[in-house]
Amino acid sequence: MRQVLHEAATFVHAVVAPLNRVGDEVGARWRDGAVTMPPGFADAYRAFWQAGWPALAAAPEHGGQGLPVALSFVLYEWLSAANHAWTMAPGLLHGAYECLAHHGDAALQARYLPKLASGEWLATMCLTEPHAGSDLGLLRTRATPCDGDTYRIEGTKLFISGGEHDLTDNIVHLVLARLPNAPAGAKGLTLLLAPKWLPDGQRNAIVCERIEDKMGLHGSPTCVLRFDGATGWLVGQPHQGLAAMFVMMNAARLHVALQGIGLLDAAWQKAHDYAQQRQQMRAPRRRDPTQAADPIIDHPAVQRLLDTQRAWVDTGRVLAYHTALQLDVAHHHPDPAVRRAAHTWCALATPVLKAAWTEQAFHGASDCLQVFGGHGYVREWGIEQIVRDVRVTMIYEGTNEIQAQDLLLRKTLPDGGAALRALLEGLRGDPQAAATPAWLDGCQRLLELLGALAAASEAQRLALYPVAGDWLRAVAITLMGWARARLGATDATWDAGAGAAFDRWVWPQQGWHCQMVEQALARA
Amino acid sequence: MRQVLHEAATFVHAVVAPLNRVGDEVGARWRDGAVTMPPGFADAYRAFWQAGWPALAAAPEHGGQGLPVALSFVLYEWLSAANHAWTMAPGLLHGAYECLAHHGDAALQARYLPKLASGEWLATMCLTEPHAGSDLGLLRTRATPCDGDTYRIEGTKLFISGGEHDLTDNIVHLVLARLPNAPAGAKGLTLLLAPKWLPDGQRNAIVCERIEDKMGLHGSPTCVLRFDGATGWLVGQPHQGLAAMFVMMNAARLHVALQGIGLLDAAWQKAHDYAQQRQQMRAPRRRDPTQAADPIIDHPAVQRLLDTQRAWVDTGRVLAYHTALQLDVAHHHPDPAVRRAAHTWCALATPVLKAAWTEQAFHGASDCLQVFGGHGYVREWGIEQIVRDVRVTMIYEGTNEIQAQDLLLRKTLPDGGAALRALLEGLRGDPQAAATPAWLDGCQRLLELLGALAAASEAQRLALYPVAGDWLRAVAITLMGWARARLGATDATWDAGAGAAFDRWVWPQQGWHCQMVEQALARA
Repeated sequence: MRQVLHEAATFVHAVVAPLNRVGDEVGARWRDGAVTMPPGFADAYRAFWQAGWPALAAAPEHGGQGLPVALSFVLYEWLSAANHAWTMAPGLLHGAYECLAHHGDAALQARYLPKLASGEWLATMCLTEPHAGSDLGLLRTRATPCDGDTYRIEGTKLFISGGEHDLTDNIVHLVLARLPNAPAGAKGLTLLLAPKWLPDGQRNAIVCERIEDKMGLHGSPTCVLRFDGATGWLVGQPHQGLAAMFVMMNAARLHVALQGIGLLDAAWQKAHDYAQQRQQMRAPRRRDPTQAADPIIDHPAVQRLLDTQRAWVDTGRVLAYHTALQLDVAHHHPDPAVRRAAHTWCALATPVLKAAWTEQAFHGASDCLQVFGGHGYVREWGIEQIVRDVRVTMIYEGTNEIQAQDLLLRKTLPDGGAALRALLEGLRGDPQAAATPAWLDGCQRLLELLGALAAASEAQRLALYPVAGDWLRAVAITLMGWARARLGATDATWDAGAGAAFDRWVWPQQGWHCQMVEQALARA
Repeated sequence: MRQVLHEAATFVHAVVAPLNRVGDEVGARWRDGAVTMPPGFADAYRAFWQAGWPALAAAPEHGGQGLPVALSFVLYEWLSAANHAWTMAPGLLHGAYECLAHHGDAALQARYLPKLASGEWLATMCLTEPHAGSDLGLLRTRATPCDGDTYRIEGTKLFISGGEHDLTDNIVHLVLARLPNAPAGAKGLTLLLAPKWLPDGQRNAIVCERIEDKMGLHGSPTCVLRFDGATGWLVGQPHQGLAAMFVMMNAARLHVALQGIGLLDAAWQKAHDYAQQRQQMRAPRRRDPTQAADPIIDHPAVQRLLDTQRAWVDTGRVLAYHTALQLDVAHHHPDPAVRRAAHTWCALATPVLKAAWTEQAFHGASDCLQVFGGHGYVREWGIEQIVRDVRVTMIYEGTNEIQAQDLLLRKTLPDGGAALRALLEGLRGDPQAAATPAWLDGCQRLLELLGALAAASEAQRLALYPVAGDWLRAVAITLMGWARARLGATDATWDAGAGAAFDRWVWPQQGWHCQMVEQALARA
């Protein structure tokens, strides 16, 4: 595993990172329905898939290497940190692979799985339509049965990342649509596979109408795709499309969390370097009294800012990699109870990681920009690009507000808080966390609040809607506290720097967010 | 005054607002030392000054209209909301006018004041150098005595807004430099005036080397200016340049606060409109059960988000316009004690308004972007431009960290908290605030903390550096609470919407920020 990560680091550093700025400045270009990727992107992608990177965690029977998902998490975090836009291309591969591996029939698997496992072909997730973003139940794209096992797809899809490009010979679109006489709403959606190039070598009737002009992520084409009677095949059962798509969506949400962690680390690295070099003003404790000014890292407000981001990055990694391990446990462990517990962890951790770490990535990257002063606002140092690029992570694959609703309304309230309670009780058994009185107090407050949520009246439940985000944040910081206890026990330097920053500047927020939820319950 | 504001609204709406997007998309262009402004900018600026808008608050003896500063505050808030980049051009006029009116000699005033009062010529503030941003004591630009009363200026200035453009016939640069044998540090700086075109019609030796490629504000050229032996005249006394420049800087800081308020309002207006039109998901309380989805403004998380920004904008206006009134009182009131109190208000409110409302403007505009989902991340709706443009307000005219230090280290601690205590005691006498128990409690907590700050040991003072931002925020929210009480008493609809949002979602933060300061004192 060390060797794999070493090779990954080399590849990311030498091939992917150098293309980050040209991706932003030149961007993807649309012309007459074709999309040209920024200079160097296609060569880097060919090198990437031919070296076997997409196949890292795919099953050996489909040509994959069968390595732990955790390794692919580290790889994607690094790729995102180095070049978010480029990484959007392979970012959806693993989810599409999993989706097809779970729900595709044998013929479809034989035709597409090996190419998706290897990354020779790329994939998209076609959900959004102009009038239907968060609310997939409003989708109107239609699929009607056609010759043999094929369907004819008609409709327009919006915000399709990598919907068209020149990176691969084919693009595999996974499309949510409605069959004739499908029930209204989200329960009437069916998943179909529609390739850019059909098996007979014909171009499918899928037209890229334009790409969006975005705040950031210029190197990733965000496409409007018109399905003009395109040919597709069923993936899974009719009207069960949402469940099939959610296999892909959950994988994507964790990838978005990794983007947040990686980009926040990249922002920290830039700001930390700059703060060591840049000398302005005298710090309260002077490093070298013969100098006219001190490095700005010696200014306590800068130190607080940087250490706080470090605490978020490092605890986020603990939680994300632990989640990756649980994904493998949930798939492969012989004991069903262990598999269930692992699945529970993943179900709860996914919205928490996605929302809390993307929010922090944007605000923390903006804080890192602030370390540069005016120099941060100009393109030169690359920090403003991170702020623009990372902003989208709070939106796509389910907005952070949707994640908060998912945690509160689907994963906390329906079982009376039982799953989250079991998870927190498990963390309390951890020796490092159990040796941290402040964390135990906070955990206890969260557990009591969980009891109050479970016992809430109908009016109280309504009053919880505006504080769903506070609930998610309280849970996130509680999980961070567990990770912080573990990290602090193994690394004294970390404990004194980022660990102390967490205790002082982050941990109090756990109580504040609990307070917002408690007050909402009390008011109702 | 109503008529003036009505005319201002008409001008801003008809002439300035329509140029906002072209300013972003085309931007200012540099070529061979000359800068071409975006299409339409020059015509709009000519119409602006010829209609007399810059002269609104200038003294009649210099050709001004002598109207209250408060009117010019409203005008600049609206201009910034409509087109931040364009407004950067006249934004520094009033400060330059005040600086010259206070510190310029008669000859310099006669030559430049009328043109600056009318806005026929524009002005810049040349402070920053590549190695000296927040720390002006490190400046190296030199000014050496020359023929007659002139000086020869040599050095390079960075981040000069409007340092070169095609809007006016002349540009008046106010430049901080060092005379020969000047003391080291900030006490050795001298202010000089150096025009682009000299009185004899010759071009001065000031070269625009390039303009910056920035995150936003593309329509405002941020220039690198090389003073290549440029001719300048003293403004005020040798080595007293920083004091003279601070007349301009304080005016600029209040203008930046107005940019924050205005742009946050613009973001709110866009998001509020969109949230009424866009229908997604069912709200917990349904507006029309026959529709498949509800307007997203009916979703409690969206309502919280929008009302919170409304509370920030409206309380910010109360505080900013009150500050404008105090500026006039400080200049014109016959009673010296009243003038002193007004001056104290301005000195304390300036860093608070600048830092707290620009920080909220960025984060609140990003929240408003979130209301649009994926549509907010694309250029179409103009909301992402606001997020990019407003980000710089947290940096320029003294970073928000500098503002926090200014409030804590220069305006709170040196007098043992007396000035701030007097200000807060004054607000406690206000009948609406005095009728708000939660506000009185918070104000009391802040006053007690003020006592603890005044009595702090040396070690405790050191521990306060990283929480200077919390102190500023605690003061800001306390002032907001006073404004909120006044607004709530006069407008029942506001009281139930933005006022209630303030009580629920903003006011608790006053206690959190007090807690951070209290804990820092307790730890030391």
